[in-house]
Amino acid sequence: MSRIDARLKDLGLTLPAPPAPVASYVPFTITAGGIVHVAGQVSRDTAGGGVTGKLGGGVTLEQGQAAARICAINLMAQLKAATGGDLDRVRRVLKLNVFVNVTPDFDPIPQVANGCSDLFVEVFGDVGRHARSAVGVANLPMGFAVEVDGVFEIA
Amino acid sequence: MSRIDARLKDLGLTLPAPPAPVASYVPFTITAGGIVHVAGQVSRDTAGGGVTGKLGGGVTLEQGQAAARICAINLMAQLKAATGGDLDRVRRVLKLNVFVNVTPDFDPIPQVANGCSDLFVEVFGDVGRHARSAVGVANLPMGFAVEVDGVFEIA
Amino acid sequence: MSRIDARLKDLGLTLPAPPAPVASYVPFTITAGGIVHVAGQVSRDTAGGGVTGKLGGGVTLEQGQAAARICAINLMAQLKAATGGDLDRVRRVLKLNVFVNVTPDFDPIPQVANGCSDLFVEVFGDVGRHARSAVGVANLPMGFAVEVDGVFEIA
Repeated sequence: MSRIDARLKDLGLTLPAPPAPVASYVPFTITAGGIVHVAGQVSRDTAGGGVTGKLGGGVTLEQGQAAARICAINLMAQLKAATGGDLDRVRRVLKLNVFVNVTPDFDPIPQVANGCSDLFVEVFGDVGRHARSAVGVANLPMGFAVEVDGVFEIA
Repeated sequence: MSRIDARLKDLGLTLPAPPAPVASYVPFTITAGGIVHVAGQVSRDTAGGGVTGKLGGGVTLEQGQAAARICAINLMAQLKAATGGDLDRVRRVLKLNVFVNVTPDFDPIPQVANGCSDLFVEVFGDVGRHARSAVGVANLPMGFAVEVDGVFEIA
Repeated sequence: MSRIDARLKDLGLTLPAPPAPVASYVPFTITAGGIVHVAGQVSRDTAGGGVTGKLGGGVTLEQGQAAARICAINLMAQLKAATGGDLDRVRRVLKLNVFVNVTPDFDPIPQVANGCSDLFVEVFGDVGRHARSAVGVANLPMGFAVEVDGVFEIA
């Protein structure tokens, strides 16, 4: 068992089968230099449910954080596929872009995004520390509450 | 004629002169390692028209898809300039970021974005399969309906 | 004094201490190949103030441009840290992503973003010429008016 798989187990986390894109694209690409671009992952869980709706319009901060955490899990599932199953090959989480579905008056956006960022650090340690942008958008695919994409460096 | 130029011709597509940025920046940059960042391209066509307005607020899904397709054509025009005219040098479309101008209740955002993604696959085949994010934004430059930027790997 | 530090001095600009992230992430990451991803910088100035609010909803175009300029200064401060204090190591500003906090009817978004882009060109010259996306979003962290992140190549 890889170091990161052991860490996931310690945290009681099981990665789902990587979610299929909802449209005509692929879940990730890898450059010759080992940079992985993972497609935006929405806050849809493996059971086909998840968190939809707007922060500031019915979705609470805690629900938003849970939504961002689902996005992190989905990103890790894609990343596991991109590394051929060995998450120990992840050298660095370079950048996460967090899009939060908000009403125009909702602004504790970093607190929502931390639901994603914190899990990356819990699972990957220093390798998981990343640059990030977090913005509030007018809507997201199928009304999901959060979408996150990422750039990663792998060995 | 390059393979991709032949494919464009088969599809009846003519790339426009690459649109000039509407502001103080350049249409693309290239790293030492051959990664091209292309600036956001809006849904403005060569004739100076294009698709403006909001999905959910007067712009139909079909018009939104046509708008996303215009963005793809403009990205390809920039990419042709970035490759010195030889689109066969494109190794991979790594990532597209699709921003759709929406009212807060419009959420079939992936369907709109497919107007862009599908054309990349039609023209480039497997090389055109990309990671993607698609989000709904509050507005776009000059009220255009769609804006797409991209990251590409070239030989 | 480095060439870029001299240029900053000529322009009467002093870079602040790089702003600390407002959440659980780091201000920048660097790949093995020398690509720097800098986290989104909001329009908060060193004094703890800055520009908050929406373009089209109380914030004027001129205030928005000033906000975008603050983001540029904060990005440069982070970039100075990323280069170990030597901004002459910056080979190219590859891409800037500009998020403007707008009401749904405000669309002169490129003009706002120029407040950031212009300063990069003033300070870095040709090295500062970058690809860019600029979009209008529903809200930003703590209600700031502008957020900008960037990708840079360093020696």
